[in-house]
Amino acid sequence: MNQWTLPDYVEDMLPDEAFYLESLRRSILDLYQSHGYFYVIPPMLEYIESLNSNGQDMDLDTFKVVDQLSGRLMGVRSDITPQVARIDAHLIQNDEVTRLSYAGSVLRTKPASFLQSREPFQIGAELYGFKGIDADLEIQTLLIKTLNTIGIKHAVFDFNHLDIFTTLIASSDVERDQLDRLYQAMQKKDKSEVVDLTKSMDKKNRDALIALVNLYGDANVLKEAEKVLPQDHTIKNALQFLKKIDNALKNNAIKISYDLSDIRGYQYHNGLVFSVYADNCYSPIALGGRYDNIGASFGRNRPATGFTMDLKNIVTLFPNGKKAKAILAPHNNDPELQKAIESLRQKGEIVAIDLFGNMKAVENNCDRILVQDASQAWKVKTV
Amino acid sequence: MNQWTLPDYVEDMLPDEAFYLESLRRSILDLYQSHGYFYVIPPMLEYIESLNSNGQDMDLDTFKVVDQLSGRLMGVRSDITPQVARIDAHLIQNDEVTRLSYAGSVLRTKPASFLQSREPFQIGAELYGFKGIDADLEIQTLLIKTLNTIGIKHAVFDFNHLDIFTTLIASSDVERDQLDRLYQAMQKKDKSEVVDLTKSMDKKNRDALIALVNLYGDANVLKEAEKVLPQDHTIKNALQFLKKIDNALKNNAIKISYDLSDIRGYQYHNGLVFSVYADNCYSPIALGGRYDNIGASFGRNRPATGFTMDLKNIVTLFPNGKKAKAILAPHNNDPELQKAIESLRQKGEIVAIDLFGNMKAVENNCDRILVQDASQAWKVKTV
Repeated sequence: MNQWTLPDYVEDMLPDEAFYLESLRRSILDLYQSHGYFYVIPPMLEYIESLNSNGQDMDLDTFKVVDQLSGRLMGVRSDITPQVARIDAHLIQNDEVTRLSYAGSVLRTKPASFLQSREPFQIGAELYGFKGIDADLEIQTLLIKTLNTIGIKHAVFDFNHLDIFTTLIASSDVERDQLDRLYQAMQKKDKSEVVDLTKSMDKKNRDALIALVNLYGDANVLKEAEKVLPQDHTIKNALQFLKKIDNALKNNAIKISYDLSDIRGYQYHNGLVFSVYADNCYSPIALGGRYDNIGASFGRNRPATGFTMDLKNIVTLFPNGKKAKAILAPHNNDPELQKAIESLRQKGEIVAIDLFGNMKAVENNCDRILVQDASQAWKVKTV
Repeated sequence: MNQWTLPDYVEDMLPDEAFYLESLRRSILDLYQSHGYFYVIPPMLEYIESLNSNGQDMDLDTFKVVDQLSGRLMGVRSDITPQVARIDAHLIQNDEVTRLSYAGSVLRTKPASFLQSREPFQIGAELYGFKGIDADLEIQTLLIKTLNTIGIKHAVFDFNHLDIFTTLIASSDVERDQLDRLYQAMQKKDKSEVVDLTKSMDKKNRDALIALVNLYGDANVLKEAEKVLPQDHTIKNALQFLKKIDNALKNNAIKISYDLSDIRGYQYHNGLVFSVYADNCYSPIALGGRYDNIGASFGRNRPATGFTMDLKNIVTLFPNGKKAKAILAPHNNDPELQKAIESLRQKGEIVAIDLFGNMKAVENNCDRILVQDASQAWKVKTV
């Protein structure tokens, strides 16, 4: 095994890709800042109890290490959102609305899919302290602006309201293990497995859970759901909420769809959740929704909604093909040359110095050189 | 233990500090890019053999985890420099000069000092492929420009040339264990320990090693060293090299000093090394120097020099005290209001929407509000 071989699903980003990621990172953080979402930097390391306080969802994804200072188990974060919720709950301690943004690497023991990295670069925005639909809409509108900033067109926002699933299983005495399997089956839309796992439930809820598997598609899904789901107050409100979202967002250049069995993160999320898909992409490019219960484990329950995306995934899926090129300048102390170099750098040009003195521009990643013209003035020349 | 308690020497960066770090990060990466140092993003995770291929220096600092996909041991990086050397050696494969820059978190099992984090934010620049002094000078000049960008004045550049120490121990048959202790004693300037550890050496080299402990201070150190160190060709060249650096850098607004027993990283570095100190700072704020041998373990030996600094440390040591403040705008769909908000954001202002509708600006991190004047036009008003 070569010493420079990287583990599977772990990669270097070389200059062109790294520059592209950096420019997206800056534009997106600037967008969030301009909307009042202040940037915070939570640490890579936390005690495991703190990272996984919101259920076991992330536990298998998290690398564990022992803290040599305390002997306690720590984890390398696999998700930034719970960290930002902890910051809202304990460090900012505001009873008004708090808006926060973040950008950074997380590590996962296994990749989310065979196309994704074990080191996603998460970027996102979170809104705390407001329970009403206007918070959800602000978050979704900010995500639409993010997609515009990146240049992603024809995105599909796929919504669900977790109150539907939660209500259907609430009255049943389902064990943790069975619930996990039901959750997997729902996600995979494995109808026969759902049929199998709900045998012990009462018929009304069981039929509804089985029906959920087929309830995905355009706005007609909501009409169909009203017909086939139980006449329950919470379920009705959830469907009503989905309709309102549809009305509020329909003037944006996105497509809206529904998937009532998309119960991703039901231990962590509640209320409205959404996945965003782009043309030709199998996996969602952004995930978001409500997680009002997350603050409780930090001792301060606050309404919360937000979204996150993996910028490394975006850079891979939507390559921009741009290459930054430099100007090669000779290495000497002529003050006029130094002035010319400084002025080019001030204008945003990249000027590299030719230490070997052979002016091999191309091999130095340069497409232009700085040379003296007939009047001894320094000029940029394309090579 | 509260669930939100972070491990020792691990911390959150809240909005003001995070914004300051982000703005320094951008200005510094832009500076490096303008000088031809292209940004790369190596991964947080690598196989342990790859991370520690350059000696055992970093091994105790590195958190280890098992790769569930291969069963092999991986490390979370504790230093980015060897990763960038690997990229130069194997991915860029240029025989000319390669200039690279990087910025990112590293993790350490223990803090470097009781004032530092276990998650430093490393930023730095590396120059590969050129053996001459001009590469060293380019790197030091770039570091001086970095300090100017940050606003750090009166920095002290403390130089050493590792050929001196290496020559003095080369002819002695020193065991690995004894060498490690000698290295510690040198770093601590523990003269009696150096006396003790060099008992088995020949008198000439032993006297010289003991003398090194006192050879620190201004340019007079070089004159003194010429007198007390052995008349060896390599040592003479090293002292000559240090004089040339002094001459070349003396017109910059920095102070230059020498410390011939500062043999930090002798397993990894070779030739010229330097530590940079700022007023009132006990630990160096930047470290740099040659590490020509590092590429060898990746199968491609290339001359290399560069520097690195911990931006988190800088933000703590030199707080700028600035606080980003927002404008609070009412939440309604008046097209004139929307236009006013959009125009303020375009101008770089932060505009947060008042979802609760109580216009409590201060509690929303705002110092101004957007209100309608007598003519119904939207105006910014200080509160």
